[in-house]
Amino acid sequence: MKYLEFAEDRKFDLILLGRVAIDLNPAYNEKVKEEFKPLKEVNMFEKYVGGSPANIAIGVSRHGMKVGFLGKVSDDQFGEYVVDYFDNEGIDTSHITKCTNGESLCLTFTEMLSSSESNILMYRNTPADLQLSVDDIDEEYIRSAKAILISGTALAASPSREAAIKAVMLARRTNTKIIFDIDYRSYSWKNDDEISIYYSLIAKEADIIMGSREEFDLTEKLIKPGMSDKETAKYWQGYHAKIVVIKHGMKGSTAYTLDGQQFSIKPFPVEARKGFGGGDGYASGFLYGLYQGWEIIDCLEFGSAEASMMVKSNTSSHTLPGPEGVFAFIKEEKELYGEMVARV
Amino acid sequence: MKYLEFAEDRKFDLILLGRVAIDLNPAYNEKVKEEFKPLKEVNMFEKYVGGSPANIAIGVSRHGMKVGFLGKVSDDQFGEYVVDYFDNEGIDTSHITKCTNGESLCLTFTEMLSSSESNILMYRNTPADLQLSVDDIDEEYIRSAKAILISGTALAASPSREAAIKAVMLARRTNTKIIFDIDYRSYSWKNDDEISIYYSLIAKEADIIMGSREEFDLTEKLIKPGMSDKETAKYWQGYHAKIVVIKHGMKGSTAYTLDGQQFSIKPFPVEARKGFGGGDGYASGFLYGLYQGWEIIDCLEFGSAEASMMVKSNTSSHTLPGPEGVFAFIKEEKELYGEMVARV
Amino acid sequence: MKYLEFAEDRKFDLILLGRVAIDLNPAYNEKVKEEFKPLKEVNMFEKYVGGSPANIAIGVSRHGMKVGFLGKVSDDQFGEYVVDYFDNEGIDTSHITKCTNGESLCLTFTEMLSSSESNILMYRNTPADLQLSVDDIDEEYIRSAKAILISGTALAASPSREAAIKAVMLARRTNTKIIFDIDYRSYSWKNDDEISIYYSLIAKEADIIMGSREEFDLTEKLIKPGMSDKETAKYWQGYHAKIVVIKHGMKGSTAYTLDGQQFSIKPFPVEARKGFGGGDGYASGFLYGLYQGWEIIDCLEFGSAEASMMVKSNTSSHTLPGPEGVFAFIKEEKELYGEMVARV
Amino acid sequence: MKYLEFAEDRKFDLILLGRVAIDLNPAYNEKVKEEFKPLKEVNMFEKYVGGSPANIAIGVSRHGMKVGFLGKVSDDQFGEYVVDYFDNEGIDTSHITKCTNGESLCLTFTEMLSSSESNILMYRNTPADLQLSVDDIDEEYIRSAKAILISGTALAASPSREAAIKAVMLARRTNTKIIFDIDYRSYSWKNDDEISIYYSLIAKEADIIMGSREEFDLTEKLIKPGMSDKETAKYWQGYHAKIVVIKHGMKGSTAYTLDGQQFSIKPFPVEARKGFGGGDGYASGFLYGLYQGWEIIDCLEFGSAEASMMVKSNTSSHTLPGPEGVFAFIKEEKELYGEMVARV
Repeated sequence: MKYLEFAEDRKFDLILLGRVAIDLNPAYNEKVKEEFKPLKEVNMFEKYVGGSPANIAIGVSRHGMKVGFLGKVSDDQFGEYVVDYFDNEGIDTSHITKCTNGESLCLTFTEMLSSSESNILMYRNTPADLQLSVDDIDEEYIRSAKAILISGTALAASPSREAAIKAVMLARRTNTKIIFDIDYRSYSWKNDDEISIYYSLIAKEADIIMGSREEFDLTEKLIKPGMSDKETAKYWQGYHAKIVVIKHGMKGSTAYTLDGQQFSIKPFPVEARKGFGGGDGYASGFLYGLYQGWEIIDCLEFGSAEASMMVKSNTSSHTLPGPEGVFAFIKEEKELYGEMVARV
Repeated sequence: MKYLEFAEDRKFDLILLGRVAIDLNPAYNEKVKEEFKPLKEVNMFEKYVGGSPANIAIGVSRHGMKVGFLGKVSDDQFGEYVVDYFDNEGIDTSHITKCTNGESLCLTFTEMLSSSESNILMYRNTPADLQLSVDDIDEEYIRSAKAILISGTALAASPSREAAIKAVMLARRTNTKIIFDIDYRSYSWKNDDEISIYYSLIAKEADIIMGSREEFDLTEKLIKPGMSDKETAKYWQGYHAKIVVIKHGMKGSTAYTLDGQQFSIKPFPVEARKGFGGGDGYASGFLYGLYQGWEIIDCLEFGSAEASMMVKSNTSSHTLPGPEGVFAFIKEEKELYGEMVARV
Repeated sequence: MKYLEFAEDRKFDLILLGRVAIDLNPAYNEKVKEEFKPLKEVNMFEKYVGGSPANIAIGVSRHGMKVGFLGKVSDDQFGEYVVDYFDNEGIDTSHITKCTNGESLCLTFTEMLSSSESNILMYRNTPADLQLSVDDIDEEYIRSAKAILISGTALAASPSREAAIKAVMLARRTNTKIIFDIDYRSYSWKNDDEISIYYSLIAKEADIIMGSREEFDLTEKLIKPGMSDKETAKYWQGYHAKIVVIKHGMKGSTAYTLDGQQFSIKPFPVEARKGFGGGDGYASGFLYGLYQGWEIIDCLEFGSAEASMMVKSNTSSHTLPGPEGVFAFIKEEKELYGEMVARV
Repeated sequence: MKYLEFAEDRKFDLILLGRVAIDLNPAYNEKVKEEFKPLKEVNMFEKYVGGSPANIAIGVSRHGMKVGFLGKVSDDQFGEYVVDYFDNEGIDTSHITKCTNGESLCLTFTEMLSSSESNILMYRNTPADLQLSVDDIDEEYIRSAKAILISGTALAASPSREAAIKAVMLARRTNTKIIFDIDYRSYSWKNDDEISIYYSLIAKEADIIMGSREEFDLTEKLIKPGMSDKETAKYWQGYHAKIVVIKHGMKGSTAYTLDGQQFSIKPFPVEARKGFGGGDGYASGFLYGLYQGWEIIDCLEFGSAEASMMVKSNTSSHTLPGPEGVFAFIKEEKELYGEMVARV
């Protein structure tokens, strides 16, 4: 069964809106290996494109989907780096604009203390991504996509907040599906009420909502705190949601569909380089499956596999796999651990 | 027919949220008459409580309704003046808080060039009213009222914006009716898209919406521009609205009810002291009638009469009448101009 | 003996730099008398030009001196009011510029609780006067005056701070004398070290310095705290000062001259309407005498008389007297209290 | 002849005040060589301590001088890195404080296009170094040093500006010599008048002033534009300067002493890795010689040698030499190019 009917005559499969940044990770390659250590002791860093929706854009693009990006970058070499990188991946950058007041791209330095302990040191003082404004949101561009994906961090402050809301309003007007990836990051938010206000505003309009239990709790604070996963799914399906995906970290995740069904998946067993980065791989894989028209459980398995592949990597973007890579990984894991390794 | 069922067990008839300010009008009383002239030539000013929801609070309170106010004032003599004035009017001030960072109450100097030409000179740099924050919004207080009235100016900037949205979300949760008085003022807003975003957000939740045609156009910009009055009414009645009041200035106004009816009224003929201030009298009178359970047309007539009384006055607050005053005015006008003077 | 040799070929006697504001005083005239009371109970206010250097400009202009003003006003009716008022007084306004970012003139509401107790409620959030910038300071204009007067409040924040310093540097370059009226107001200053830094910077360049003992203490904090009046005078005379005037409130004031002499004066006995406003009258009178080439003690007596006249008035600007008025006042007081009424 | 008499009973030879930052240079070491290329194509970066006064502090400390640093760092791993690094170099960090409002250390990414073409991409939005405040400036600490060095960048914005001025005022009070390294960087300054105001303020108090011709032109803009090197030296020697060093880039530099002498030096011929970084080596070497009591020409030669050594390096701090290294370099160069290789 298909839960979403995408308008078929659209140029893009998906346009993503939100944060693109620069990751500066402790170097870890053939030449230099900065082993787990405090950040202050790291001497060499590798530069990558980062930011959750940017990662997902790269992920789905590598699966062959036609992708555009709605975002704001710095008017400097780092901004050009991002645009060049996207261009090279085949991602449409016609609607990535440059800051006009000297704002800089967000920088993320990651401290890797062990495979599960990590911290970030951010340069995020009036960052470029949050300068996205309503003037950057173009109805024709929204109309040219089957769906838009709103990454929740874009809602954390103005003017990006209003740009994201405008995109959602125009998506509804143009029959463009709305995917909401809650992607909560504490930075930039001023208080919990504000989070609930803006997350719920988007969640009410979304066709697909993806988030962790904690993220749904934040979303529902001013509406009805303490809902169970099933109640959550039902509540948002009372608005426009067809699929609600709720994640529980290492315990796995479940997709609730509008017809009352639910489908669960677990992570694949891997040795992690870092305790983060899986979520964007998950979203890439899951959305790819959905666009292929697969059964929900197969979408979930594909997403979970891609997530597991990413936590093994030193980057959250540059090593994202093509579909063959994910299939190969699944095959390999199943040979090692059995057919039901990730299925619940 | 009653379009709204208020919960009867509430302490307050109405809690208003939004701007309270100081009006400094050219003196015009028995002792001093500053005739129509440029502001720079005015020597003496009279101080009044001002701000649209503050005026309405005073208006309905003088009609005998039980009223509370949710707002923020300066921590100085002007803030105390407002609280003292409200206390004296019997308006509950338990939820009026003081600014903690030295912000000042908005000041409005009015330039009166003729009975129809006027300008304002505002001191509104980070004003006290816009410092209202989510922490000031208390679920129990919202639950203690039959309805809350949100004045649109509160949406113009953070943190007041989120405070107003939170109040609306809690009102929905506590079965407190929501009245949205659009009250557009250009100040503080950054662009038209932003206006449409936040006005429509509240309008979707409101049980009663009151605004001019221009205000509805602003509200609907990102949804469906160019709607007629009937389309507007129908659109918002598709959400929660039971009564939609659309004003056309001197041409009169019309209330559209959920049952498909419409009722129109015109202004009463008076000689104006100033071209503004009528709107708050209109709202006071109309809401009073509604709470009395009157027919819609009678509510409108009462509101229109109170509006006409206010444009004759040098203040928008201190001379607001009691119900007997309005009845007397209507009687007098009808004797002069006929029973149907204001009815269409 | 003359302590200062002014260049004689200058168009203006004095150009003053600094704050001009609007005073809104409780009305006190033939028609309306707002007696001593808390500000919140005052209903009617009278509008006046205010701000220390503005008052002094009006004062010396009424004594017949040729005066210009270097300042910034709001681009609204209040800004026009100030310029019109100055024009009418014969003060050159060619170098008063208008704010370009919507800043407002400072407003001062005075609370008069008794003839000696008063408070002010200020609207001074990014005020117009502090927007004076280096671009407003024109070497030719500085060169066209015998002296400039820097009012210390202009140093409280950027960009006005740098404008004032630039004016002083250009004055030194063009042989324009520098008069520093310390005029300390706590608002806008961030800490005491900052006050000492900027006051001392100007004091080092000034030919005449006028201030209270407390103001000199603030000035000297980072140099040598705890100096006596004589030490203070000697210290600044080690730089460029020829005359140092140190005030001790009701106890009187003393002028220390470069030749080691000192001259003292006391206030004239009057019944005060308010406990402030005398200082600007004092400066007007003292400077007038100095330009006339009078003996220092006569300059001081004239200044003290003008000060006493001002504390009796409801305004600090509009009732400033011409020289005949001051002479008449001195004559009257001496007849009442004896020739030495103010002399020590 | 000795031009400066340092108070001998001081704990520190020199305390430097100003900017400390993080340099992220394209990696260039045994393992990774990022050759000349646009910054956007650089994949790996090496992290170093940077900032002109920080480099000089390291430089003179490696020559055996007792050094302290007055600065502000971020309250994060990068701030700790700087303090750890200084501690390890033997630089006193007792007066390096941490930011309390989450400000970040300035980051400098260097783009190296050729040995002479380079650009920088800075993260310098409210940077930690400019948060140094008057409260961080302690009279006892200033008194504990023979001299303080003020790096001009500290004057670019408040509160660091006032901290630097306070340090200079206290240095004068405590007979601590004042060295002013103009070190002009365009960032943070608002206009040229402001530069002249604050540079000249410090230059008037300084015992030694070091800067390029362009930097002296900026300093003198509001005083007397267009001075020759000799006029410049004479002008500042009219205040407190004993030695004025004026640099002309590759053409060499000249020291003007209070007794009317002048001494010139040229760069040593080397192949540069980068077109910057020499200045801090120059200052380190020159000041070291001065403290040793050397003839001025020998101080200059030593400074010039250290400068040449630094432009060959990939960093401006970590490869600063000890005195033996500089002597060896001079010996080697002289053997290659002749005794007078750098002397004019």
